[in-house]
Amino acid sequence: MQEFFKKQKQVSQFPLLDQVNFPNDLKKLAKDQLPQFCKELRQFVIEVISQHPGHFAATLGVIELTVALHYVYNTPYDQVVFDVGHQAYAHKILTGRKNMFDTLRLFHGLSPFPNRAESEYDAFTVGHASTSISAALGLAVAAEQLGRDDQHVISVIGDGAMTGGMAFEGLNNAGIQKSNLLVVLNDNHIAIDPNRGALDNYLLDMTTSRTYNRVRNDVWNALEKFNRLVPSAREFIKKVENGIKYVVMKRSNLFAGFGFRYFGPVDGHDVIHLVEIFQEMKNIHGPKLLHIVTKKGKGYKFAEENQTAWHATSAAFNIETGKKLTTSVPSPNQGPKYQDVFGKTLLTLAEKNSKIVGVTPAMPSGCSMNMMSAKYPDRVFDVGIAEEHAVTFSAGMAAQGLIPFCNIYSTFMQRSYDQIIHDVCLPKLPVILCLDRAGLVGADGATHQGAFDISYLRHIPNLTVTAPMDEIDLRNLMYTAQLPGVGPISIRYPRGNGHNPDWECDFKEMEIGKGRKIADGEDIAIVSIGTVGYEVTKALQMLKQENIFPAHFDMRFVKPLDTELLRQIFAKFKRVITVEDNVLQGGFGSCVLEFSMDNYFDVKIKRLGIPDRFIEHGSQQDLYKVCGYDSESIVAAVKNMLLLKK
Amino acid sequence: MQEFFKKQKQVSQFPLLDQVNFPNDLKKLAKDQLPQFCKELRQFVIEVISQHPGHFAATLGVIELTVALHYVYNTPYDQVVFDVGHQAYAHKILTGRKNMFDTLRLFHGLSPFPNRAESEYDAFTVGHASTSISAALGLAVAAEQLGRDDQHVISVIGDGAMTGGMAFEGLNNAGIQKSNLLVVLNDNHIAIDPNRGALDNYLLDMTTSRTYNRVRNDVWNALEKFNRLVPSAREFIKKVENGIKYVVMKRSNLFAGFGFRYFGPVDGHDVIHLVEIFQEMKNIHGPKLLHIVTKKGKGYKFAEENQTAWHATSAAFNIETGKKLTTSVPSPNQGPKYQDVFGKTLLTLAEKNSKIVGVTPAMPSGCSMNMMSAKYPDRVFDVGIAEEHAVTFSAGMAAQGLIPFCNIYSTFMQRSYDQIIHDVCLPKLPVILCLDRAGLVGADGATHQGAFDISYLRHIPNLTVTAPMDEIDLRNLMYTAQLPGVGPISIRYPRGNGHNPDWECDFKEMEIGKGRKIADGEDIAIVSIGTVGYEVTKALQMLKQENIFPAHFDMRFVKPLDTELLRQIFAKFKRVITVEDNVLQGGFGSCVLEFSMDNYFDVKIKRLGIPDRFIEHGSQQDLYKVCGYDSESIVAAVKNMLLLKK
Repeated sequence: MQEFFKKQKQVSQFPLLDQVNFPNDLKKLAKDQLPQFCKELRQFVIEVISQHPGHFAATLGVIELTVALHYVYNTPYDQVVFDVGHQAYAHKILTGRKNMFDTLRLFHGLSPFPNRAESEYDAFTVGHASTSISAALGLAVAAEQLGRDDQHVISVIGDGAMTGGMAFEGLNNAGIQKSNLLVVLNDNHIAIDPNRGALDNYLLDMTTSRTYNRVRNDVWNALEKFNRLVPSAREFIKKVENGIKYVVMKRSNLFAGFGFRYFGPVDGHDVIHLVEIFQEMKNIHGPKLLHIVTKKGKGYKFAEENQTAWHATSAAFNIETGKKLTTSVPSPNQGPKYQDVFGKTLLTLAEKNSKIVGVTPAMPSGCSMNMMSAKYPDRVFDVGIAEEHAVTFSAGMAAQGLIPFCNIYSTFMQRSYDQIIHDVCLPKLPVILCLDRAGLVGADGATHQGAFDISYLRHIPNLTVTAPMDEIDLRNLMYTAQLPGVGPISIRYPRGNGHNPDWECDFKEMEIGKGRKIADGEDIAIVSIGTVGYEVTKALQMLKQENIFPAHFDMRFVKPLDTELLRQIFAKFKRVITVEDNVLQGGFGSCVLEFSMDNYFDVKIKRLGIPDRFIEHGSQQDLYKVCGYDSESIVAAVKNMLLLKK
Repeated sequence: MQEFFKKQKQVSQFPLLDQVNFPNDLKKLAKDQLPQFCKELRQFVIEVISQHPGHFAATLGVIELTVALHYVYNTPYDQVVFDVGHQAYAHKILTGRKNMFDTLRLFHGLSPFPNRAESEYDAFTVGHASTSISAALGLAVAAEQLGRDDQHVISVIGDGAMTGGMAFEGLNNAGIQKSNLLVVLNDNHIAIDPNRGALDNYLLDMTTSRTYNRVRNDVWNALEKFNRLVPSAREFIKKVENGIKYVVMKRSNLFAGFGFRYFGPVDGHDVIHLVEIFQEMKNIHGPKLLHIVTKKGKGYKFAEENQTAWHATSAAFNIETGKKLTTSVPSPNQGPKYQDVFGKTLLTLAEKNSKIVGVTPAMPSGCSMNMMSAKYPDRVFDVGIAEEHAVTFSAGMAAQGLIPFCNIYSTFMQRSYDQIIHDVCLPKLPVILCLDRAGLVGADGATHQGAFDISYLRHIPNLTVTAPMDEIDLRNLMYTAQLPGVGPISIRYPRGNGHNPDWECDFKEMEIGKGRKIADGEDIAIVSIGTVGYEVTKALQMLKQENIFPAHFDMRFVKPLDTELLRQIFAKFKRVITVEDNVLQGGFGSCVLEFSMDNYFDVKIKRLGIPDRFIEHGSQQDLYKVCGYDSESIVAAVKNMLLLKK
């Protein structure tokens, strides 16, 4: 980074940005310098991200907003809560983290999202959508309770996150609290994929003033006719029209309906205007909402033109051409992305079975369900960021005899936990829950790890809980899940690529609750679930060099557990290691433990998995190592266990 | 029940109701007979519930609505989804369940809520709030997919449930689906306690037409002045006014903002008008919302006057006087209700510590937080039915240094699972999560059992997870939880009464992660968590008669586990029984198992708790027995284990 800055200083590409490390530095600039400052800040973000992949387009859309907020408000005393936080890079740069910005998302580097543990300027730890109004209301109500009348609290929320139910719960509650809360609604009509939902239409309607125009036209047409009769009335009619405009615009407002004072919509890229508005707003007490309109990817033409693709970058790119600078060559044994195995398989199944429908909460490209929607747009439902609704909506469709594949990232499925219990599993409705990004996800860090799903799903009655080890099993589990009578089932699979380039085999029904032997062996059995089975495979290859030959079993099903196979294993092996990409507490290993103790088997079981702490960002391999279930750790565990007396 | 009907027939109290067992019978009545029919149905509900306790006031409020729906729509082909379902008694009576209505909520009797397994007329299994729009949209979209153009789907939702976030997620998605969905918003300004939130104000505003009145007055005042100048304009002005009324009322509407056609508000107790409206509505395609205004408890004056107290009855009552017919005498050792231990202790703590605040999602009387709000109304926040918001709002307050006690029933806390992980435990904010109604709750049945919380909480990093065995421990845990540095902590306790009339002792700090010995013993150790420890106490008394003396330990903390105590136990006892009022999968017993195996202790552990299925309604004692951890089952488990070789 020092190198980078040195280079920049020579060419003086960032004369204003160079002077700013903290909001106090920013406040020293004159208001009319801010447009230039924004230009530099935007360029800086583009240059760094072009070399260090990360979230991209969202930050470009809020450069002016971020600058205006830190220019006007007294952060960190005043508290800005960014919703989701993937738009908070500019915020990080302005709050003491410019010089380490190139460590973002790296192991031990800057956190990908605002994080209270990282900076006092990060008022709230975020990552999941739609939390900011609730959190900010809590901060604002507390400020009031503590007599801090001069403390301002601001929630910055995108229109995508606004569809999440808890954002509405927050609005509804804020409307009666009368606390000093400002919600900035950053309206760009897109989350990762373009927004879907009535709210989006509504905001567009607001922005283009269709509501007002309709009322005005109706009244105007009538009055105009009258006006022709009584020409002297013109001035008066103008007055009436203004009255209607004021009343209709204020009262027809969704947010005003919730008791917020509504302001906007205004241009979110006019930094000087934003500064003036915030200066005014500081003096208005009570809940208020500022509706700004921005463009995601603003200022970088490729991102403006393809906002979904540029939501986050996965590799360095050439700024001039927008082309990826691919440095890593895929290994010959690399399989497809698991999300694409899901997407292609879903499409194939949907072609064969007209009862199949797809449900995704705002992730059609993230989970590759867009492959099905391209062919069957009427059978795929992007319900917006609304995980609770996604699951219960799926349950409703299942109750009518359809077969819904509801795909939600493991970490976001946490939002649907109650709906899975209450609306899917209690009535035993055959919803197929697909948990993408299960296990450790890597660079997105602690808020996004899919660390808990085996533990939170496996205690739910009536649910079949599965985790395929490879692409072929994922494909066949999806096939099996849509067969009649299988009932509610969950299928978890990780972020990233598989190991089988030739995975598109014929469908084969999998027997529910049956695992398989991967490798014969002696002394120790390793029992794994899911794709970390490949870490075991690697470990076995390493151990072979030392003439150690543990057996390896892939259980495929967490529930029902293959008790017949386990009995065979426990009959032969008195030392067992379980491996999972999930927390150790109540996870897959605990299932195996429970079965072994319920039947008083005399075996020693060592469980490998995620320990009882939040796991930060880093590469998946780094994190497997940290958590002690990469291949080397498995080798070490085997050797340790061999030291135990039988 | 047969007796009851015989008696009724003699006096012919229900001449019309006697003819109706199914909707088809109802449809044979003339429209003008419906008011009389409603009168009888209401009286029938009052008479049965006066002898068989259950939910009460909500059903009285929807008698006319329920009759009108079944009179007009072709149920069960047309699908009615009741939100929550505590208002669905009249629905049950009209759909084949009149003759067993007195078995409601009893073990093996009628389910307390609509239940797909019980009747084809129950379109969706419900119990938790705010699910009906999502479920109904699923049903409606599926009807469309399946080409059932004549199938109508109706969601009946109270304004209380409408504050739940997923209701909004459902509205937002329905607005773009254009499916044939009717939402009936039953607006009575109360859930169990009176509703809080901006939405409630909004609905009142709509009902009293303040919005329209304001616009009309503004315009009218202006036009009137003009009118005095040009008298001939009177007729014309009337026309303009009507235009404004139409446009403003339609467009200023919150629900219209979501793309729904809005109708209402109308009187929900005018059954003939409701029938006419539904007949009209059958011909209107697309998402539409009918706003009806009803009175909770309608037709029974005591319930109308005190809606919260009459939400549900806990004992038989005299219809004339409204007085409880108490039949059971409290035993001399009966302690207070656990909820009151919480309520009184919270008040006492709040008196001593001004940083303490209370948060409840629409349950101030259910969890007894109303004791604190009576004295400190500004420090208690009833956020409406909004469990996700409740937790994150608490986290926001904790981030500013306040100490929030957030009380949510165990079953409803399932809604907050993601927020506990992401907003409380990841940033380690000292929120005190109080889970009332943990464990088996009894008559409310499968949807309301607090069966999962130990399993879903104990795998969350940074969280201290506790379950007091008695009132004194609950009190002291609450005291301890609010001390500095304790961090996020959960405290679970059951529905019902404790065992210690003298529980209001001086506060004593409890050491985090320390259990206690309740009884010395030999051969077998019973390790329990929470109030089911009393079942162990009873079991020990029974076993004493047979000269069997197991030891008994109360662990108090699920996490951190008292590993020192466990080491002592495992050193002395090779046979251990764990007892918990929680599912066996990943629960407390699994914690003990995990610790024992992680350290390769040579012990046999038998776990008692809730098995892997949904547990229906019945008395708590019935259900403990069914699940195998009442005192007798514990006795049996001890004897069985004694048969094992050491």
